[in-house]
Amino acid sequence: MDDRLSINFWSPYTGYMHRRIFDTAEKIQTMEIRGAGRIAVAAASAIRDYAAELQADSMEEFSRKIQEAADVLINTRPTAVSLPNAVRIASSHSSGSVEESRAEIIENAENFIKQAQEALGRIGEIGARRIRDSDVVLTHCNSHAALAAIKKAFDQGKNISVIATESRPRKQGLLTIKELNDYGIPATLIVDSAVRSVIKDVDIVIVGADAIAVNGTLVNKIGTSQIALMAHEARVNFLVAAETYKFSPDTILGQLIDIEERSKDEVIDPGVLKDMENVTVKNPAFDFTPAEYIDLIITEIGAIPPGMAYTIIKEHLGWKLADLR
Amino acid sequence: MDDRLSINFWSPYTGYMHRRIFDTAEKIQTMEIRGAGRIAVAAASAIRDYAAELQADSMEEFSRKIQEAADVLINTRPTAVSLPNAVRIASSHSSGSVEESRAEIIENAENFIKQAQEALGRIGEIGARRIRDSDVVLTHCNSHAALAAIKKAFDQGKNISVIATESRPRKQGLLTIKELNDYGIPATLIVDSAVRSVIKDVDIVIVGADAIAVNGTLVNKIGTSQIALMAHEARVNFLVAAETYKFSPDTILGQLIDIEERSKDEVIDPGVLKDMENVTVKNPAFDFTPAEYIDLIITEIGAIPPGMAYTIIKEHLGWKLADLR
Amino acid sequence: MDDRLSINFWSPYTGYMHRRIFDTAEKIQTMEIRGAGRIAVAAASAIRDYAAELQADSMEEFSRKIQEAADVLINTRPTAVSLPNAVRIASSHSSGSVEESRAEIIENAENFIKQAQEALGRIGEIGARRIRDSDVVLTHCNSHAALAAIKKAFDQGKNISVIATESRPRKQGLLTIKELNDYGIPATLIVDSAVRSVIKDVDIVIVGADAIAVNGTLVNKIGTSQIALMAHEARVNFLVAAETYKFSPDTILGQLIDIEERSKDEVIDPGVLKDMENVTVKNPAFDFTPAEYIDLIITEIGAIPPGMAYTIIKEHLGWKLADLR
Amino acid sequence: MDDRLSINFWSPYTGYMHRRIFDTAEKIQTMEIRGAGRIAVAAASAIRDYAAELQADSMEEFSRKIQEAADVLINTRPTAVSLPNAVRIASSHSSGSVEESRAEIIENAENFIKQAQEALGRIGEIGARRIRDSDVVLTHCNSHAALAAIKKAFDQGKNISVIATESRPRKQGLLTIKELNDYGIPATLIVDSAVRSVIKDVDIVIVGADAIAVNGTLVNKIGTSQIALMAHEARVNFLVAAETYKFSPDTILGQLIDIEERSKDEVIDPGVLKDMENVTVKNPAFDFTPAEYIDLIITEIGAIPPGMAYTIIKEHLGWKLADLR
Amino acid sequence: MDDRLSINFWSPYTGYMHRRIFDTAEKIQTMEIRGAGRIAVAAASAIRDYAAELQADSMEEFSRKIQEAADVLINTRPTAVSLPNAVRIASSHSSGSVEESRAEIIENAENFIKQAQEALGRIGEIGARRIRDSDVVLTHCNSHAALAAIKKAFDQGKNISVIATESRPRKQGLLTIKELNDYGIPATLIVDSAVRSVIKDVDIVIVGADAIAVNGTLVNKIGTSQIALMAHEARVNFLVAAETYKFSPDTILGQLIDIEERSKDEVIDPGVLKDMENVTVKNPAFDFTPAEYIDLIITEIGAIPPGMAYTIIKEHLGWKLADLR
Amino acid sequence: MDDRLSINFWSPYTGYMHRRIFDTAEKIQTMEIRGAGRIAVAAASAIRDYAAELQADSMEEFSRKIQEAADVLINTRPTAVSLPNAVRIASSHSSGSVEESRAEIIENAENFIKQAQEALGRIGEIGARRIRDSDVVLTHCNSHAALAAIKKAFDQGKNISVIATESRPRKQGLLTIKELNDYGIPATLIVDSAVRSVIKDVDIVIVGADAIAVNGTLVNKIGTSQIALMAHEARVNFLVAAETYKFSPDTILGQLIDIEERSKDEVIDPGVLKDMENVTVKNPAFDFTPAEYIDLIITEIGAIPPGMAYTIIKEHLGWKLADLR
Repeated sequence: MDDRLSINFWSPYTGYMHRRIFDTAEKIQTMEIRGAGRIAVAAASAIRDYAAELQADSMEEFSRKIQEAADVLINTRPTAVSLPNAVRIASSHSSGSVEESRAEIIENAENFIKQAQEALGRIGEIGARRIRDSDVVLTHCNSHAALAAIKKAFDQGKNISVIATESRPRKQGLLTIKELNDYGIPATLIVDSAVRSVIKDVDIVIVGADAIAVNGTLVNKIGTSQIALMAHEARVNFLVAAETYKFSPDTILGQLIDIEERSKDEVIDPGVLKDMENVTVKNPAFDFTPAEYIDLIITEIGAIPPGMAYTIIKEHLGWKLADLR
Repeated sequence: MDDRLSINFWSPYTGYMHRRIFDTAEKIQTMEIRGAGRIAVAAASAIRDYAAELQADSMEEFSRKIQEAADVLINTRPTAVSLPNAVRIASSHSSGSVEESRAEIIENAENFIKQAQEALGRIGEIGARRIRDSDVVLTHCNSHAALAAIKKAFDQGKNISVIATESRPRKQGLLTIKELNDYGIPATLIVDSAVRSVIKDVDIVIVGADAIAVNGTLVNKIGTSQIALMAHEARVNFLVAAETYKFSPDTILGQLIDIEERSKDEVIDPGVLKDMENVTVKNPAFDFTPAEYIDLIITEIGAIPPGMAYTIIKEHLGWKLADLR
Repeated sequence: MDDRLSINFWSPYTGYMHRRIFDTAEKIQTMEIRGAGRIAVAAASAIRDYAAELQADSMEEFSRKIQEAADVLINTRPTAVSLPNAVRIASSHSSGSVEESRAEIIENAENFIKQAQEALGRIGEIGARRIRDSDVVLTHCNSHAALAAIKKAFDQGKNISVIATESRPRKQGLLTIKELNDYGIPATLIVDSAVRSVIKDVDIVIVGADAIAVNGTLVNKIGTSQIALMAHEARVNFLVAAETYKFSPDTILGQLIDIEERSKDEVIDPGVLKDMENVTVKNPAFDFTPAEYIDLIITEIGAIPPGMAYTIIKEHLGWKLADLR
Repeated sequence: MDDRLSINFWSPYTGYMHRRIFDTAEKIQTMEIRGAGRIAVAAASAIRDYAAELQADSMEEFSRKIQEAADVLINTRPTAVSLPNAVRIASSHSSGSVEESRAEIIENAENFIKQAQEALGRIGEIGARRIRDSDVVLTHCNSHAALAAIKKAFDQGKNISVIATESRPRKQGLLTIKELNDYGIPATLIVDSAVRSVIKDVDIVIVGADAIAVNGTLVNKIGTSQIALMAHEARVNFLVAAETYKFSPDTILGQLIDIEERSKDEVIDPGVLKDMENVTVKNPAFDFTPAEYIDLIITEIGAIPPGMAYTIIKEHLGWKLADLR
Repeated sequence: MDDRLSINFWSPYTGYMHRRIFDTAEKIQTMEIRGAGRIAVAAASAIRDYAAELQADSMEEFSRKIQEAADVLINTRPTAVSLPNAVRIASSHSSGSVEESRAEIIENAENFIKQAQEALGRIGEIGARRIRDSDVVLTHCNSHAALAAIKKAFDQGKNISVIATESRPRKQGLLTIKELNDYGIPATLIVDSAVRSVIKDVDIVIVGADAIAVNGTLVNKIGTSQIALMAHEARVNFLVAAETYKFSPDTILGQLIDIEERSKDEVIDPGVLKDMENVTVKNPAFDFTPAEYIDLIITEIGAIPPGMAYTIIKEHLGWKLADLR
Repeated sequence: MDDRLSINFWSPYTGYMHRRIFDTAEKIQTMEIRGAGRIAVAAASAIRDYAAELQADSMEEFSRKIQEAADVLINTRPTAVSLPNAVRIASSHSSGSVEESRAEIIENAENFIKQAQEALGRIGEIGARRIRDSDVVLTHCNSHAALAAIKKAFDQGKNISVIATESRPRKQGLLTIKELNDYGIPATLIVDSAVRSVIKDVDIVIVGADAIAVNGTLVNKIGTSQIALMAHEARVNFLVAAETYKFSPDTILGQLIDIEERSKDEVIDPGVLKDMENVTVKNPAFDFTPAEYIDLIITEIGAIPPGMAYTIIKEHLGWKLADLR
């Protein structure tokens, strides 16, 4: 067991948190579970399982423990809004009896998981319609939603090819070309610096999302905003594939989305860095893409312009002003 | 001796080329000698040494052998214009006697080398004036000219710091932070994708040049044009530090500058790639930055706007319409 | 009877389609009936008349025949979304009895026609408020909705004048100047290439719409997007006059709007072209204007920014996710 | 009593308007009551007090007199939409008995006043979240809503400073620096022409609003649109702090917002001007900032992009198509 | 003989102008001789022939008659600067004897004609280098210089194709497709309004020039500036092919270039127009393309950025400040 | 005598400087002599008069005293480059005898003064050609060169009018409207914040210059760059009227142009400011306008694009690399 992490999970009220919550939180933090969609499903599952076995003498104790588990999960990674959205939806319950609430949580979590899984298919279908025969698609990092649209278009017999960026520092682009290769889709790997050199041969850019703010600002893998700017400069359409649970209700309240600063070791060998006392490393995991560079966001409930984020949050995340502090 | 390279160096007229030309060409091609300025000096030196020892029975033979040597050097890397400029200047000679021509070449080469070395100091002085106290400077790749300006500004007691991009695929950014660290200048390393995230904290961008076309278009390390675009988007000044021998006379004749496509192995482990039959790699070494994103080019004869490239070529490279085919 | 067309209208189930459907389809296809609004009203009328006389032995047969008629009409011109919107609204009926359904269709069609006619007046009123005294208005092609606003402003005593583009290849601009002339409004005719030369004397641009996508992209007569770009470059307001039935629900599902490619004969004399074997003609009838170049869309239910298209579709076209395949 | 003003307030039906309406109208017109929020509250209060004491023999007379009072107030300043919004909300009443209607108006006015006061606190809280520690904030003129956000951020212990523009001709910037100084917030005064010189040191711009149109166009103090353009040029976020009653329902009907032209005497000494017969003065009090230069509008019901203005009007101002002529 | 024209050619000093001048002037005015290059050559030839036969009793009379002939030619079309440049160069002579001056003019004219003819070949060679294999080239109107580059690239075995605009009102695009067809180059004809629809498939735009101002502003066939704007919007290179005699020395003195307004009959049938008393026609023959939308100007002395126009005028047109009033 | 100033004028070598130098320096510093052109002429006159009377025992002493006088004048205001240019040209002398050098200085100064005076007339003529009949011209501050063009156009019978900005803090706009009024030219005064509101009614902007850098960057009265940005946004031509001695040779060496920070008292009453301990004032006198917003610079030797600044400096200011340290 990792001592560093366990500290976070200690609760003065309930002792060590249920193993399931702990494991999931650890895997999210270490990026063993990775990708905003997978994180959301894992967190909802953990809440469900925790609720299913949670011993509580009172409704008050039950609610408090669920809230503690929710907080542990939410705090693992600061940027991905899918996490608090999933946990909030899954852990929602009435203030009736413990058993009633337990059942509600299990049902809410199951529903969320089911919808999240169906969302991917739906996004694939809608997104695929935007890809025409013989299109060259550029994608960044390794987004399940973006790849769902690309694969679906390929399934429809469209003769497409993909340019995938390396996506330093963690090189998720290598996962993407592996996935495309195995699916039979021709792919070209480039370094992140080569996007402007190839963008004029690109017909459409499709990326995923870690979070979408109320004004349509996209938060996604570092480098995304650069690609969007270059696509805009060359009049190339820029699409985002994002489940509705990626939209951030808190931004309606003015909340800024924190950008996770990850370890220097992802960028440079620690041994090399150690000998350079005047050198530091900055390693932000995500960046902000303004709405003006985004043509369309493909969600499971339809394709929308980024300016519609507020409506999506209100109509599809059931967000109410009173829900938030 | 490397058979692959030796083929290029074989001449039907003169047998194997002089070892000195061979060695230099090989080192330039394998990037053991790297950077447009160092390449130029190495090529001029090789021509000088070759001319110094060249045996020729006639003026005609002497000229032909010099031309062959020149061609070998010029063909090693297609993009860097400093190479043909240096070779053309160094190998220039009259059609008098062999000994007279030999002396001319030695003198021309020496002059070129001296001026190239002085140019760096001059660029450092002029460029340093553009850096103000407490400025944050961003640089890309590892340019001697750009670093000359940065170091000079630091020498003047200005309290500056530098953000250096990693510069994939060859990570010349690591050389840059090492050089800055050893000089005592605070530096921050970022991945190439993080430029737009930090650009608003940057006061000035300074990069080097591999070539500058007649309309001021800059050819430099892949990724440069992206940075210039982002600097422009955020109203950050973008400077180029470039010796006058980086300007390309051939572009006046409409010549396009070829972008060197380097090995896939620089981007991805060949073993990994081998198993992906649907995947290719594109690895252009340089890109084009349009003049509209460049505020100033710092040369050894002064700071000029990019639109002045034609004047520089004509006045300082002694270019005449008749010189070129 | 036109054999080429009749083929489309043959139905294996019902024999030749009712004459009324046939005639309307033919007139839409040959552009005898022209303009998205007139097409919509004609199609709704045809459905109404067809339903009024349709003989069917069963509810199932009635529905199938209505659907076939609807398909015939919808397929005449691919771009104008008013056509499927009108046909969908007009042909909507419950699954009760044949007579009940017939009555429903007649009522739905009548309502649609009435609303379409009132919409024009309403758009005229709202649009006229955006035109100030002494304004110079530029319009493209021959849009009833745009002209409604212009005429209404003139009726209000505003001293306006209009610049009308020729609108090659079919020169609908000649219809526009004729209509303006007869109304007493001073008009100036220019070729399509002269827009940038005059745009700085223009106070406001008003055009019609063939379709509006969910992200506010306008589909309108070829050349519209060029005018919008030039208006944007010169800070001139660009307005679209469009009935709500011009908004495309299918684009929420990612559907691309097909651009109709019309006959080469509209552009060049076929005899002339015949002798040029290396020459082809491209004659797209419409183009796409991005939302960022549109300041306001005037609909019969109010003036909205293009980003509100999703809301209009959902609230005013009664669009539901389940409605569409 | 000011004869010039009294003329406006004479009513052929009811003789001189109640003193309370007169006084408030005069103070609004002379800018003794200033600022869109304060104007709205003052007008609602005046309507409330007028209704409370109004003698009327019939429901019809009561309604007519209320309407006259409303018109007097609305006509004092043409641009600020808060005025008609406040008056419309406050004077709204059913057509039952006089006493019933009187009670309704008093309640409606009280509610409006209460909500307007709470709105400021709410905007302060939401807006403060957008201000980060050590931010430099630029503001224009003297907006209560913008200052509410700035002060709240300062209260939260954030180490911020403010650049305030002078805001010619009436120099409301002097009020702003006085208010900031008294609150302990470091402030820098600049002339309006110096914005572009300092904007790169600014982290965020926050201004108030006099009106917001359906397409998100902001109407605010003259000079605002220049600042927004310069912020956009330098990639600096531009925020508007605006209560929902600043949104203009009439713009949905195409209504243009009139820009108040104020006295020449605000700009130049009348004595000086008198001797220059070839010279005139143009003194528009407000200008239009297009939505594309606005990142976020902070309202009391949340932060929204400017494109959401239509939704805000419909959902929060209870606007219905039928309400308006 | 055409009375309308003859009036212009009457000279109070010399009676009717020599037939050769008259004929050439008429053909230029009626566009029988068309295209800035052909006009220049025709005018120089006319001056040469006129000088060859001119009877004059004194040097003073000779000079005056030459000047009158020059003025007649220059005044035929106001926009094309090639005309005054050609006439000025051709008619230049010393103030020695009549025979000496006659010989000078004949030599100057011959030289100009020879250089003009060689220029086209040189522009073709330089321009062709900018066209890559498999490029799609878009051109507007019917420019000999632009077509020279396109044909040369085709001659070099490059697999290119051309998109040609119709170029209303005179449809010179039909000449262009005819010329391309006969040369074997695949071409596509589009209406002028379709440029933005196809520009993303275009690799390079090449157009000719009627005049180039000192700040690089291009004057060319109406519609050119629209195409340049659209090319810029889509990051497509925009090249101008122009002999140096297209550059306008007078613009150094602030001279504006007049845009020729041509007959309404080119745009609309006069009979149709006659019945529309509220309608006028505006038919400017050329428009202004700002230098910022031009990447390169191909001249016979090299490719230059538009900002170099001043240098070209000074160095290659022998322009001196004193030359001009 | 002003003690504060006298300190600067004390020279350890020569005692108090000649009264003439002192007076001129004081008047420049206090802005009694104002405007880059007038400052240049005053400085050249002072050098001339000083040289005329200077007692010196040796050539060395003469040169040193002239240099000291030059330095005193140059240091009075840091931004206006006309000052060092004028002083450098006027004080230039050979190293022959004292009397010879004295004569040279007198002649050089006289020549400079004469050329400066003629320059204004020449700029007026050239600039007036860019102003068309019925144009609305906008100008900022109070530039003699800009007004020369405006007056000349008016003299030519063109029916023009002028919009003049107030130009806070010193309100030089009031001087401009007085001057225009007296000349009979209709003028409209606006506050600096109103430029964007009126710019669409403007046909051309003409401003003066305090300095022009080698890359065409304009240094002029604070607010100029804002106007240029707004003119660019609305496609309005932006012209600079500037004598060649406004171009800065030092910028070729990378020298930054210092922006003079003037007294807070120009912006706010010192008494008011004294009571606000948290408030400071920033009062930069000039700002930087990038070349991309400038269409043309009108100099006495012709109209040029801003990119030609390097050529102007080299050809017309006699600048040589060796001249500068």
